[in-house]
Amino acid sequence: MAEVKLFRTWSSPFALRIVWALKLKDVPYDTIFEDLANKSSLLLQFNPVHKKVPVLVHNGKSVAESFVILEYIEETWKHNPLLPEDPYDRATARFWAKFGEEKVLLSIWEAFNSEGKEQEECIVKAKENLKYLEEELKGKKFFGGERIGFADIALGWLADYEGVFEEVASMKLIAEDEFPLLSEWKRTFADAPIIKENWPPRDKLVIKFQAIREASLLKKLGN
Amino acid sequence: MAEVKLFRTWSSPFALRIVWALKLKDVPYDTIFEDLANKSSLLLQFNPVHKKVPVLVHNGKSVAESFVILEYIEETWKHNPLLPEDPYDRATARFWAKFGEEKVLLSIWEAFNSEGKEQEECIVKAKENLKYLEEELKGKKFFGGERIGFADIALGWLADYEGVFEEVASMKLIAEDEFPLLSEWKRTFADAPIIKENWPPRDKLVIKFQAIREASLLKKLGN
Repeated sequence: MAEVKLFRTWSSPFALRIVWALKLKDVPYDTIFEDLANKSSLLLQFNPVHKKVPVLVHNGKSVAESFVILEYIEETWKHNPLLPEDPYDRATARFWAKFGEEKVLLSIWEAFNSEGKEQEECIVKAKENLKYLEEELKGKKFFGGERIGFADIALGWLADYEGVFEEVASMKLIAEDEFPLLSEWKRTFADAPIIKENWPPRDKLVIKFQAIREASLLKKLGN
Repeated sequence: MAEVKLFRTWSSPFALRIVWALKLKDVPYDTIFEDLANKSSLLLQFNPVHKKVPVLVHNGKSVAESFVILEYIEETWKHNPLLPEDPYDRATARFWAKFGEEKVLLSIWEAFNSEGKEQEECIVKAKENLKYLEEELKGKKFFGGERIGFADIALGWLADYEGVFEEVASMKLIAEDEFPLLSEWKRTFADAPIIKENWPPRDKLVIKFQAIREASLLKKLGN
C-alpha cells in the first residue's frame, strides 16, 4: 500500500483536481472509490466535518477540501510546482481559483438547474463571469502561463463537465466566437497528458447530470 | 506614503483580517477608507472583478479577497508567521478558516437575518457548526496554538461581531456553559494586543447591523 490514499468518487470534479495534482507531481497513491449514497466508515472517520470527497490521507493523517489539499500537496511534494514562485503571481492563481469556485461554478450551476426565462438570466450572469476568465487568458496558454498550474487545476472542470452541463441543459455558454481563448484553453487543457487520461466516461456523466437536473427542476415545480 | 496601501471600510470584518495581519507583522501601510455606497475610482481600478474591500496594494499591484491577501502577506513578509511550518498543520489552519467562512459565518448570518421559528432552526444549525470549533480548541489557547494564527484571524469576527449579531437579533449562540472553550477564546482573542485596539466602535456596529437586519426582514415579508 502506498503511504498516500485518495478517497474520491468516479464523478467528483473536485476529487479530479487531486488526481491531476498527484499525477502531475508523480506521487504514487492508492484510490478508494466511495459511493456517497453509502459512505464508508473510513470516509466518515477521515472527514467527519463535511463527510465528502475528496479526502487525502498521508501517513495516516487526513486532509479535506480540494483547495486545502492542493496547497498541502504543493507544500509536501515541492517538485513540479503548481504555484509560481513570486507571491504576487501566487496570489493571482489563488484569486482565479477562488473566483472559479464562487462565481463561475455557482453561476453555471444555477443555469444548469433552471429552464426558460430563469435559465436565460442565469446564462447572462454566467457569461459575465466567464468573460473575466477570457480576459485573463490573453497572451497565455494556461492560466498558469506556459504550463498547467493551480488555477488550471481549479478550473479544469470547465474543460469537460461544462460541456456536459451544456448538453444536458440544452444551453450554450462557451461559444468559440464569443470565448475564443477560453475555448482554446478548454481543448488544450482537456487534451494535455495526465489530464486527458483521467476524465470520467462522458456517457456516464451525461446520465448522472441528467438525473440531477431532472430532480432539481422537479423540486422547483414543487415549491 | 508607504509602499503598502489597504482599502477598507470602517466596519468590514473581512478587511479587519488584513489590518490584524499587517499589524501582527509590523508592516507599515496607509489606509484608504471606502464608502461602499460611493466607491472610489481607485477601488474599482484595483478590484474590478468584485469591487469590494479589502484590497491590498503593494508596490502598485493589487490583491483582493481576504484569504488570498493573508497568504500574500504571509509569503511576502515571512517574519511573525501566521501559518505553522508543517504542511499538515498549515492544512489544518486553512481548513478551519474555510469552514469558518463557508459554514459558521453563513449559518450565523442566516440566523441573524431571520426571526421566529425560522431563526430557531438556523440557530440549531449554527450551533452544530460552532461545536466543531469548540472541539478544535481543546487543549489550545488559540486555533493556532500558543499564539494567534491564520485560523484565529479568519475566525476573529466571532470575538466581536458575533456578539453584536446576538444583541441585534435577540439570540444567544455562544453561551458560556455550552461553549466554554470558544467563550474563553473570544475573550482572549478580543483582548489580545493589536486585536484589541482595532475593533470598530461597538455602538456604530449595532446601528449598522440593526439597519441590515431590518432591511432583510422587510425584504422577506415582501416575498
